[in-house]
Amino acid sequence: MSLNTYGHVFRVTTWGESHGPALGCTVDGCPPNVPLTAEAIQVWLDRRRPGQSKMTTQRNEPDAVRILSGVFEDRTTGTPIQLMIENQDQRSKDYGEIAETFRPGHADITYWQKYGIRDFRGGGRSSARETAARVAAGGVARAALGELVPGLSVTGYMVQMGEKRIDRKRMDIAEIDRNPFWCPDAEAAEEWAAYLDWLRKDDHNSVGAVIEVVATGVPPGLGAPVYGKLDTDLAAACMSINAVKGVEIGEGMAAAALTGRDNADEIVMGPDGPEYTSNHAGGILGGISTGQDIVLRFAVKPTSSILSPRRSIRKDGTATEVVTKGRHDPCVGIRAVPVGEAMVAAVILDHLLLDRAQTGGLRGAIGPG
Amino acid sequence: MSLNTYGHVFRVTTWGESHGPALGCTVDGCPPNVPLTAEAIQVWLDRRRPGQSKMTTQRNEPDAVRILSGVFEDRTTGTPIQLMIENQDQRSKDYGEIAETFRPGHADITYWQKYGIRDFRGGGRSSARETAARVAAGGVARAALGELVPGLSVTGYMVQMGEKRIDRKRMDIAEIDRNPFWCPDAEAAEEWAAYLDWLRKDDHNSVGAVIEVVATGVPPGLGAPVYGKLDTDLAAACMSINAVKGVEIGEGMAAAALTGRDNADEIVMGPDGPEYTSNHAGGILGGISTGQDIVLRFAVKPTSSILSPRRSIRKDGTATEVVTKGRHDPCVGIRAVPVGEAMVAAVILDHLLLDRAQTGGLRGAIGPG
Amino acid sequence: MSLNTYGHVFRVTTWGESHGPALGCTVDGCPPNVPLTAEAIQVWLDRRRPGQSKMTTQRNEPDAVRILSGVFEDRTTGTPIQLMIENQDQRSKDYGEIAETFRPGHADITYWQKYGIRDFRGGGRSSARETAARVAAGGVARAALGELVPGLSVTGYMVQMGEKRIDRKRMDIAEIDRNPFWCPDAEAAEEWAAYLDWLRKDDHNSVGAVIEVVATGVPPGLGAPVYGKLDTDLAAACMSINAVKGVEIGEGMAAAALTGRDNADEIVMGPDGPEYTSNHAGGILGGISTGQDIVLRFAVKPTSSILSPRRSIRKDGTATEVVTKGRHDPCVGIRAVPVGEAMVAAVILDHLLLDRAQTGGLRGAIGPG
Amino acid sequence: MSLNTYGHVFRVTTWGESHGPALGCTVDGCPPNVPLTAEAIQVWLDRRRPGQSKMTTQRNEPDAVRILSGVFEDRTTGTPIQLMIENQDQRSKDYGEIAETFRPGHADITYWQKYGIRDFRGGGRSSARETAARVAAGGVARAALGELVPGLSVTGYMVQMGEKRIDRKRMDIAEIDRNPFWCPDAEAAEEWAAYLDWLRKDDHNSVGAVIEVVATGVPPGLGAPVYGKLDTDLAAACMSINAVKGVEIGEGMAAAALTGRDNADEIVMGPDGPEYTSNHAGGILGGISTGQDIVLRFAVKPTSSILSPRRSIRKDGTATEVVTKGRHDPCVGIRAVPVGEAMVAAVILDHLLLDRAQTGGLRGAIGPG
Repeated sequence: MSLNTYGHVFRVTTWGESHGPALGCTVDGCPPNVPLTAEAIQVWLDRRRPGQSKMTTQRNEPDAVRILSGVFEDRTTGTPIQLMIENQDQRSKDYGEIAETFRPGHADITYWQKYGIRDFRGGGRSSARETAARVAAGGVARAALGELVPGLSVTGYMVQMGEKRIDRKRMDIAEIDRNPFWCPDAEAAEEWAAYLDWLRKDDHNSVGAVIEVVATGVPPGLGAPVYGKLDTDLAAACMSINAVKGVEIGEGMAAAALTGRDNADEIVMGPDGPEYTSNHAGGILGGISTGQDIVLRFAVKPTSSILSPRRSIRKDGTATEVVTKGRHDPCVGIRAVPVGEAMVAAVILDHLLLDRAQTGGLRGAIGPG
Repeated sequence: MSLNTYGHVFRVTTWGESHGPALGCTVDGCPPNVPLTAEAIQVWLDRRRPGQSKMTTQRNEPDAVRILSGVFEDRTTGTPIQLMIENQDQRSKDYGEIAETFRPGHADITYWQKYGIRDFRGGGRSSARETAARVAAGGVARAALGELVPGLSVTGYMVQMGEKRIDRKRMDIAEIDRNPFWCPDAEAAEEWAAYLDWLRKDDHNSVGAVIEVVATGVPPGLGAPVYGKLDTDLAAACMSINAVKGVEIGEGMAAAALTGRDNADEIVMGPDGPEYTSNHAGGILGGISTGQDIVLRFAVKPTSSILSPRRSIRKDGTATEVVTKGRHDPCVGIRAVPVGEAMVAAVILDHLLLDRAQTGGLRGAIGPG
Repeated sequence: MSLNTYGHVFRVTTWGESHGPALGCTVDGCPPNVPLTAEAIQVWLDRRRPGQSKMTTQRNEPDAVRILSGVFEDRTTGTPIQLMIENQDQRSKDYGEIAETFRPGHADITYWQKYGIRDFRGGGRSSARETAARVAAGGVARAALGELVPGLSVTGYMVQMGEKRIDRKRMDIAEIDRNPFWCPDAEAAEEWAAYLDWLRKDDHNSVGAVIEVVATGVPPGLGAPVYGKLDTDLAAACMSINAVKGVEIGEGMAAAALTGRDNADEIVMGPDGPEYTSNHAGGILGGISTGQDIVLRFAVKPTSSILSPRRSIRKDGTATEVVTKGRHDPCVGIRAVPVGEAMVAAVILDHLLLDRAQTGGLRGAIGPG
Repeated sequence: MSLNTYGHVFRVTTWGESHGPALGCTVDGCPPNVPLTAEAIQVWLDRRRPGQSKMTTQRNEPDAVRILSGVFEDRTTGTPIQLMIENQDQRSKDYGEIAETFRPGHADITYWQKYGIRDFRGGGRSSARETAARVAAGGVARAALGELVPGLSVTGYMVQMGEKRIDRKRMDIAEIDRNPFWCPDAEAAEEWAAYLDWLRKDDHNSVGAVIEVVATGVPPGLGAPVYGKLDTDLAAACMSINAVKGVEIGEGMAAAALTGRDNADEIVMGPDGPEYTSNHAGGILGGISTGQDIVLRFAVKPTSSILSPRRSIRKDGTATEVVTKGRHDPCVGIRAVPVGEAMVAAVILDHLLLDRAQTGGLRGAIGPG
């Protein structure tokens, strides 16, 4: 039962609510002797941090991470790593109305129905603030991957906002850090900025997005045949992120429209081993990595918290209208980019450790014997 | 580490290879006193069974299930239920070439790279025959659900084959059992039949598909906030099925294109509790069921085994061309329908049991107190 | 893989080192709506707290617990409960010698051999300070048990120190809180006090102990047949406590000397259900609770940190002698009493939740139908 | 939730009842490329097999194991290994009385109270026949250990029957296979034979036993600090065996009577690394193996099934007397010897795989650098 934990060997358990004193995670199973400092983790947290542009919530959180255990003289010891982020900007306010009302599209009603109690302040446990803990854990995963598989990289970016997609021909990874959308298409980023500005200020609305994450340098052989598949865990990891409604590997949903002839990634022998003429599979065959880039996408629904009124009910069953004021992301997909990266990094590290458990990192030889 | 196991409380571990003596599964954690017979499980296996029409592989397997443990006088005892299906139609043949060659799009190469050994006969463990064990386990899940939540139903059907989609306006659930595609649109089914016939015989090709599964009568409150989300486990369950490349809940990938105003499922008070004016969420909010229909879709890639030649390599690195003769499904998505249903049934039962573990089935009251 | 986690449904993950900034635990899977405050947990921590008598280490730690998540308006919400205890009295000192030396009987050498790195300050992760987190988690378990099974109680006490055992005829549970040994035999407690004083001051030595824990009011039906046995989990829980070398249920090791006739707990029908004429089984048959008192014992080895010199080696292989100065428990078994209670409480709650997962709390009726 | 499963990486799930058609286990996570045949497993099963001497039950079971999956051309493939043993000698008889009566000391009553249904034939799931599956799994573990740690051995033997203990001075491991008790003391074995014969035939009674298991050649570094301790898992593994009531590591319960000075295993530098002047710890410090012999003992209670009448009740609450006729072990501890060995072998392999997951088999160097 892993209610708030992910991973098999590299196990991350997150805790904390939006308006509690702090949030964080316990990272268990990290290899020992990995160089790790709070500063190294902070780099990743700063990418996800709210309040950095007008495109994201104006809640101002430094998201400063502290390492409380598991690291000694800037190296991991193999014992549980506790990461804590104190909440700073929990505005005190009157929750009278929101405490009694279920906001449409939010977990307010399902939490209430499940638990008979909910911390309604800022969404409580269902708040996207929980993802800060995941990004922190992702920082640990990246540090460990850096030791175990030098050269492995995990990069996320937005490929669609609302109905507007990037133009793959203009795609340039270097653009990702140059705009607030993590968008690899500079032209699209400009268009999105104008659109989102209008959407938020004039239309009192929000919009969804598609994030793509690519992992390069992943060795072949990670995964397992049936339920411990690498793609199974990647799908779970992404679907577990707030507001995600779909996950795709390689061709994804579009694979349905292809024929077997078109979808086949033909294999040829390269100087360093097998190579593929295409990557429809997204780097995974039969649940196990091929050594090609792992490519996945996930869709984030539009933020449910909007200034436009929506019909709902109160706990006592009476009808009401909800208009969500306050500080909200008009496109929560933007901040999902570093979260997606973090989850993918954690899953890959986890499968790397799993693989050496069962096989010891064995690889069947290919080539002239 | 759940390499070949799914579920938290209702745990299914499958075993067996395509051409071994048998395959099956151990179902642990099933509630006691559930009426269960081999016949009741067989009903579901018969839906998945190969060789039933020219649309699926001609391998002829009775897929007769035996219950070896955990059932006494036709009732479950609460101890592990062992289900075994003997393989009958493993054709003996010369595997000389296939033993040395990696078929494109298959797990041949990744199994070899991971394990340094593979049972190449019929795909071994990576064969879709493994899904028979899942369907058998799904039969147990359905029997338990029948006791615990009378009226709950789980129904799967194909909504897309290649580029051809059903017309939602013509959709009729009663049609599903009347054609070999589990297609709810009789007109589409006819068109698909002609297309698939041509594809297989003339084009020597295969094609992908999209399956939709709907669960009705699911109580609200199943799931958990962060990683034990109902949608996380549904996504993992579907992605773990052979050849699946994408999974969607509710609006799925299309949620990216929606605005918050359009995507909101407004809540109104009905005679028996909360009702929703729409179901963009697919019955899940914040990882927890709302009581609406749970709606998901997954995409199955086209079968890699086709009669058209594809380039590949042998174990020794030399180039070759692979033409897969033998008995293969031109659209493996067809037989994925009962598999998807089985996985969804297992996940829902599992979360029902999980929910009563933590909350005892508690529900926060909504309505005039 | 549960390196630092115990429990199936009620899952506790502890973190922290002896001389780090803090230690604590994440408690996941606790039922919602359980009344819980830091003060209620503190009561149990105060029982384990060091520095309370000359019989235990003089390290002075307030062990003040903070609840960082999972509790709202003094009730559990069903989300992860984070408990943190800040370390206060980590004396700064020169670790030059201890950093290079392996203390006999300590985990210094095995940590080094496993991880190639160790936090040598005060034993790091292997310090008994870790058990503070377990006692805090036990406080949560007790709170939940108080809601679910009113009247259930878990009580631990010392029955042996060194070769000195209590006299069962003088046993009085009321005595437990009246002496620093949690000893139910006032006369033995006095004798132990004099002995331990001499041992510590004059003999520069330490000594082992046996703790007994009794749980009354446990309903029948908790546990599972094979590996999810209640006694399996109790044994694991106790053996996981620092310095524990043996665990017994009911007659324990002495069961070997009994005959079947003597060991049989005969069953008679009482006014409220089955009763037993004896309790050799310690309240568990076939891994499942009978409703009788659950009785277990565990042995704690003598503290390895003593003022008498013992031979050892340094990291470079050179010989040395170790004399452990500093603040250490002459009988670490004393403080193991509240830890044992906490572990037993956690296991019982966990199995209570597990049981309602699978059976819904079903009980086969006994008596005239 | 591991109701019928043990292990983290090397996971064994057992299934089957005493009088069902078959029993067996699924072994998941075994390393690939391990040489394995049914014959190699059979060797271990034959040691546990009933009906071999008048000292054990006269039920005649060949216990012939079949490998149904996971092995290809006599090597493990890394996929789940299914082992099946068909029951042959389930005598058909009238269960009328036993179906309604709870035998004292048996799980009859607790199964009924938990599940509201039980397979009463021969004890159903609670029968010691289940341990055949564990011994088969242990055979797989031994095969894998043989590949990974040549020279590692796991040996069990009886050191006490009733009140009669072996004389450690006469102990000779070579004797173990020469008497039906797996007793390393030939003189004791003779005495036990006479005693057990009298006990069974004249006294209509049964008796308990203590088993010791020693593992030599275990590398240092296996285990983990807190809950993934090697001794935690060994304790759980042994306590999970039918009728076991106590488990000890090293000095075990006797550690309570020792002082720190006596209990210290001093460390000296040997030619190949650290050596210890004694082994009070039983080869485990802080939950992690030291490289010394791992030594554990467990106590098995006397068989509850005896020819002497014991008072009990029926399901309807009426009083009765139970005299258990039929084929039962007068000292079930005898057949627990190979079961204990199997469990210890499985735990050690599991921790070996776990260790390489987290640390990659890293070892901190000791000696002149």
